[in-house]
Amino acid sequence: MLDRIELRPNERVDHLINRGLKIIQSREVFSFSMDAVLLAHFANVPKQGRLIDLCTGTGVIPLLLSGRTKGKIIGVEIQEKLWDMANRSVMINDLHDQIEIIEADLKNMPSLFGDGSFDYLTCNPPYMPSGGDQNLNPYIAIARHEIMCTLEDVVSVSHRLVRSGGKIALVHRPSRLVDLLTLMRQYRIEPKRIRFVHPRHGQEANMVLVEGIRDGGREMKIMPPLIVYNEKGEYTEEMKAIYEGS
Amino acid sequence: MLDRIELRPNERVDHLINRGLKIIQSREVFSFSMDAVLLAHFANVPKQGRLIDLCTGTGVIPLLLSGRTKGKIIGVEIQEKLWDMANRSVMINDLHDQIEIIEADLKNMPSLFGDGSFDYLTCNPPYMPSGGDQNLNPYIAIARHEIMCTLEDVVSVSHRLVRSGGKIALVHRPSRLVDLLTLMRQYRIEPKRIRFVHPRHGQEANMVLVEGIRDGGREMKIMPPLIVYNEKGEYTEEMKAIYEGS
Repeated sequence: MLDRIELRPNERVDHLINRGLKIIQSREVFSFSMDAVLLAHFANVPKQGRLIDLCTGTGVIPLLLSGRTKGKIIGVEIQEKLWDMANRSVMINDLHDQIEIIEADLKNMPSLFGDGSFDYLTCNPPYMPSGGDQNLNPYIAIARHEIMCTLEDVVSVSHRLVRSGGKIALVHRPSRLVDLLTLMRQYRIEPKRIRFVHPRHGQEANMVLVEGIRDGGREMKIMPPLIVYNEKGEYTEEMKAIYEGS
Repeated sequence: MLDRIELRPNERVDHLINRGLKIIQSREVFSFSMDAVLLAHFANVPKQGRLIDLCTGTGVIPLLLSGRTKGKIIGVEIQEKLWDMANRSVMINDLHDQIEIIEADLKNMPSLFGDGSFDYLTCNPPYMPSGGDQNLNPYIAIARHEIMCTLEDVVSVSHRLVRSGGKIALVHRPSRLVDLLTLMRQYRIEPKRIRFVHPRHGQEANMVLVEGIRDGGREMKIMPPLIVYNEKGEYTEEMKAIYEGS
């Protein structure tokens, strides 16, 4: 289907990590990140059901999840340019029966879809507060800073969108861990499984992956740490396996 | 001074891990645990000032901290038998000028010492809720289960005992992480530094060490994981160094 999809100026088609998936990227906006790849890998998505990915950007998480579930996946992106890229990436991969990318503000999703309408929700939100040292490129600034949505917006909307017993998986910076866990408990998404990502052995974590259950009980696990690089600066065996899509 | 300290039936004198320290233990109560050793190692205690250790048991944490600070250390223990053992261990080591063990309920400490009267607080509290499958030995049951104090008691009392800018270090089970962090924030002891302990590479954490600052800002770090055993089932180099007191 690639021949029928139009590329806009400065865009290119890159190969996603596994199963021959392709993704449209552009040097005008951010590229998909390791964070999104690790979140998609971490998420214990159901084999079927309804899934939603907030702050989907160029759609990398719905694309990666498509091979692991037969469920329908909605991607939500507020920036028209990114929505348009994600939408065409879905078409390039012939996944428009499974994935739908909508251009919308995530805060409007509960009224659009109704409360409790999803089984699984993923989100790689902006990590940094708004204001301060923001990137001048608005596409990147909105993706990185809490300009269009805060962490509390993401968690409160997630609480409404996911059914009782449904799950939510998020990625964030460890510096915000207490904010993240207290908001999840406040909105009755009990954290159940946490994994920290460390660049190398002996270094502090620079990423945290959290999965919670709507209305879940108060028990949780800390998974083994994920180490990204070995002493030679190469990906560890586990990271290689993740990027090879196993 | 050992010759002047009386040992009671079933008691013995063991060597603590470093600097020739001795500790009285008994087969009737629990022995000091790896948890206490790792908490004492993790705690960034000030070189001087006033320190307090709640749920001190046989006094292992004050004994271990005594070599790392010139500050005065109070140990608080509610069980008379354990208080008596801890008290005599302090005398055996000739540390009665630096360490005082008091027999008391930690909940009465703010009225005894006054608000904000300590610079650093440590606690290795009971991990498990009261009720259920409790040990029949009351010394062990009280040490392990929230019979005499809950986690909220520990955190709320800590908030009162430590001055603004003072620090608190706790050890607990990862399953209670969200309880611990939400209580700390609720009582304005902001978590700043967390370390997870994993028995082996590739295994879930079974212990969490947390240090918080009273009235601290909302930023925190996840330290590198501490791995206890290598593939051969021996202590890792880092664990050996901790037990050798380096």
